[in-house]
Amino acid sequence: MTTETRIILLAHGSSDKHWCQTFETLAAPTLEAVPQSVVAYMELSTPSLEQVIKESVAQGYRRFVVLPLFLAAGRHLRKDVPAMIATLEVTYGTTISLAAPIGENPHLGQAIRYVVEDTLEASYG
Amino acid sequence: MTTETRIILLAHGSSDKHWCQTFETLAAPTLEAVPQSVVAYMELSTPSLEQVIKESVAQGYRRFVVLPLFLAAGRHLRKDVPAMIATLEVTYGTTISLAAPIGENPHLGQAIRYVVEDTLEASYG
Repeated sequence: MTTETRIILLAHGSSDKHWCQTFETLAAPTLEAVPQSVVAYMELSTPSLEQVIKESVAQGYRRFVVLPLFLAAGRHLRKDVPAMIATLEVTYGTTISLAAPIGENPHLGQAIRYVVEDTLEASYG
Repeated sequence: MTTETRIILLAHGSSDKHWCQTFETLAAPTLEAVPQSVVAYMELSTPSLEQVIKESVAQGYRRFVVLPLFLAAGRHLRKDVPAMIATLEVTYGTTISLAAPIGENPHLGQAIRYVVEDTLEASYG
């Protein structure tokens, strides 16, 4: 058992392989820097949120933060994910916090500005 | 008429006001740093992509880069948006390039890492 909080980067999921690769690439700097972080998918892709919780509990984790790799909160984050989390907390006897979607953090707005600057350079290059 | 390229930050759009506010906040650092940038919505919110192109053409813009504020490319970016762009190019006699979604740029992966570090601090704070 560990007192560490496991960070779950929750992406939507898709039947399209390229779509999932984009999220794996997006998560890579985090996975490298934060050993207790992991990716899970809300639907259509694996590992699912439940698979990750189940395996993590077996590894001794009891506290989780789910960080949505979503730019903004729509129906999924307001309703579907909280419902999934409530069920998983009961099933696995864990504490799971749902963080705000990454798009609500100012780091994202700064990153978008850098992307635009890259885009402008490419456009005039 | 201007030779400048207008940068259009294209968000999905939603009937939910809070959802749009998140994108306006996300776009704010860019809008401040890059005067020829502007936000448009694919559907459900205004200004639409067509409204922005129409007004920009009236202001003298002839070249556009559409930068999708999407983490990954799904059906919308593979099919719907290219079709909209093809129609708008003909209707308004403009050149409109579709850039890769912001999630494919490494700046976003770094930003996510910073968000996770913030989240960990908050979780242990």
